[in-house]
Amino acid sequence: MTSFDSLWATILDVGQHKSTRGYRRFAWSDADMTLREWFSDCAQARGMSVEEDRNGNLWAWWMPEGWDGDPRDSFVTGSHLDSVPDGGAYDGPLGVVSAFAAIDLVRGRGIAPTRPVAVTAFSDEEGARFGVACVGSQLSTGALAPTRALALRDNDGISLGEALVGAGRDPHHLGEDPDLVDRVGVYVELHVEQGRALDLIDSPVAVASSIWPHGRWQFVFSGEANHAGATRLVDRRDPMLAFASSVHTARTAATLHEAVATFGKVRVLPNGANAIPSEVRAWLDARAADEETLTKLVQQITAEAQAYAAADGIGLVVDAESVTPIVEFPHSTRERLRRSLAHLGDIPVLPTAAGHDAGILSARVPTAMMFVRNPTGVSHSPDEFAEADDCNRGAEALADVMADWVGGQR
Amino acid sequence: MTSFDSLWATILDVGQHKSTRGYRRFAWSDADMTLREWFSDCAQARGMSVEEDRNGNLWAWWMPEGWDGDPRDSFVTGSHLDSVPDGGAYDGPLGVVSAFAAIDLVRGRGIAPTRPVAVTAFSDEEGARFGVACVGSQLSTGALAPTRALALRDNDGISLGEALVGAGRDPHHLGEDPDLVDRVGVYVELHVEQGRALDLIDSPVAVASSIWPHGRWQFVFSGEANHAGATRLVDRRDPMLAFASSVHTARTAATLHEAVATFGKVRVLPNGANAIPSEVRAWLDARAADEETLTKLVQQITAEAQAYAAADGIGLVVDAESVTPIVEFPHSTRERLRRSLAHLGDIPVLPTAAGHDAGILSARVPTAMMFVRNPTGVSHSPDEFAEADDCNRGAEALADVMADWVGGQR
Repeated sequence: MTSFDSLWATILDVGQHKSTRGYRRFAWSDADMTLREWFSDCAQARGMSVEEDRNGNLWAWWMPEGWDGDPRDSFVTGSHLDSVPDGGAYDGPLGVVSAFAAIDLVRGRGIAPTRPVAVTAFSDEEGARFGVACVGSQLSTGALAPTRALALRDNDGISLGEALVGAGRDPHHLGEDPDLVDRVGVYVELHVEQGRALDLIDSPVAVASSIWPHGRWQFVFSGEANHAGATRLVDRRDPMLAFASSVHTARTAATLHEAVATFGKVRVLPNGANAIPSEVRAWLDARAADEETLTKLVQQITAEAQAYAAADGIGLVVDAESVTPIVEFPHSTRERLRRSLAHLGDIPVLPTAAGHDAGILSARVPTAMMFVRNPTGVSHSPDEFAEADDCNRGAEALADVMADWVGGQR
Repeated sequence: MTSFDSLWATILDVGQHKSTRGYRRFAWSDADMTLREWFSDCAQARGMSVEEDRNGNLWAWWMPEGWDGDPRDSFVTGSHLDSVPDGGAYDGPLGVVSAFAAIDLVRGRGIAPTRPVAVTAFSDEEGARFGVACVGSQLSTGALAPTRALALRDNDGISLGEALVGAGRDPHHLGEDPDLVDRVGVYVELHVEQGRALDLIDSPVAVASSIWPHGRWQFVFSGEANHAGATRLVDRRDPMLAFASSVHTARTAATLHEAVATFGKVRVLPNGANAIPSEVRAWLDARAADEETLTKLVQQITAEAQAYAAADGIGLVVDAESVTPIVEFPHSTRERLRRSLAHLGDIPVLPTAAGHDAGILSARVPTAMMFVRNPTGVSHSPDEFAEADDCNRGAEALADVMADWVGGQR
């Protein structure tokens, strides 16, 4: 038993929708603010000092006794607390709760760290509210410009800048973190698996090899609003048809390229039952094993969508909202984790097609990821699940890695 | 010149969205309340008494001098003031403004009515907010049960009952109007044409022959939410694909049956760019020249959609939200209108595929419709348009009909 279970129970209510049972923990929403307070409470209960950096990322510090000055070369572990719309309980919070539980375990073993240890919760990882993923880690690594971030708007037209002011933050602080590289010796993110590979090989924990290159493209199909009853078929410029064709093209092209491609978000204007749409705005999520394949995949979908639009006399503009190159986690770091876990047997090594803050940070600091088995593979859904036993194994494994890394006498 | 132009200018700002220029005049919204006040002001400026009936429909009365008791066998004309999302300026308000302008013209000719004249604005004709069209006239004719109406909910989860309370109305009053048949001798609704027939034959005004049978069906495609990156294509139950296929089936089937069918409103859950949808809810609007064809059309679309859903392992439930049978406007009433307008030449007679309160009322009282030319045919769009000259001709023609009907000495 670890402290995982009791800690886990304290956030299950936050941001859960009553009827869908899904989580709606959007950046800078009430649910997010509650989770930020919860994070501070967890840290304070452990005597850890809490800091919110210039980009809204949370850090809780466990400093070696007698440490002089700022943290450097620290062992950092954590994940994020926000969710997709009607997401599951595990994606993100599992890594943060496991990080606090791992600290309890390491302390329980009588280990005092020789270097700083931090638990982090990166801000707005899912990008559910403002459309761009990993906003906190992208800002801190300089991958996202503050001016672009501040101008992002949610579906209600509220900008990130306005949301920050609403949450009592100063939006002028946003920007690259000059101390990041010095502070972080390694970042280890534990995450629920988002697939069934561990279930198929009957293993509770894995480490990551790479993150597939992936991105998000906005397709805006523009037609002409008109009366759905009184407008003859031949007089219509209905953008729904080219969008519908593109949905099938995305699936077919993904199959061909052994990749994945999804239209999962759609906004229709005016969205009246008796009105032909003036506009269908849809977001393509596409991922592939390598960057060349991803490029070919998106080019094929875009070209076919353009052909459908041209045939229907409607407009189509395709914009890349975010494109993330492949991330290969450093081999040496990954092998160090596997050695720390050697007593558990031969730890599997898996790629993932999901983006993570660890992928963003890997551009600047050594990073690694650990996965905990997901028996159904379901993710980004209220049905996302991991067995309590496996969650405890994950926290134990993270504690093993932490103990090896921060050394110290027992 | 009629008083049409000056009256028309007084409502152009109400409920117009700044960026789309489209109108958002939803039932019981602030815009609707402003238009209701405007209606009262128009009536009072003409010495007409105003009444809001139990279902929120507005009536402005011009009573014959010395009339004793309640109105009966009245000449009633008007339309509605609400709009679809980002609708045009003309659909609805043209009929109400023309009705007041026609009264000014008839009075200007020195005519005193021998029977009551009323201008009406029926409540919630478009059904844009609560999903059911012609709520006000359907309630008054007994076509819609008050319990069902009160339970209708908008996209924010607010019920019609709650919206009525919010607008200071008593929802317990809703129900069939026992005085309707006695009160209304004839209902004449003037409306902008929603097609280009009058433009093609170069005629400014027409009278209606019939309203095509039409309806609205809700298609709920239910799959399984999952991560758009990490879920293998073969493990997906993505409802977007069957929806997309159904969009094309609707178009193909409509072409085959010489009808119209449109998916113009879509709601996706959870609607996250990196989440496979758990549900796609889409509304089919379908209309045909006769009821047998409409039934066949919808049966074909439903059967093919069910086959797509079954092939993808997803669920599909199809519900008829509203189905309106064909309306044949009474031949004698229509011919009486054409005789009143004989000085304008041979007035064209047209069917319409759009639903109207006149269609609902025709189940209980004699009704007729007049159309004013729409040079582009565009409707339910900010680009909906009629020439000012044609609007004035429409008001003059309505005045001719009113003068003939209410007789009286000059």
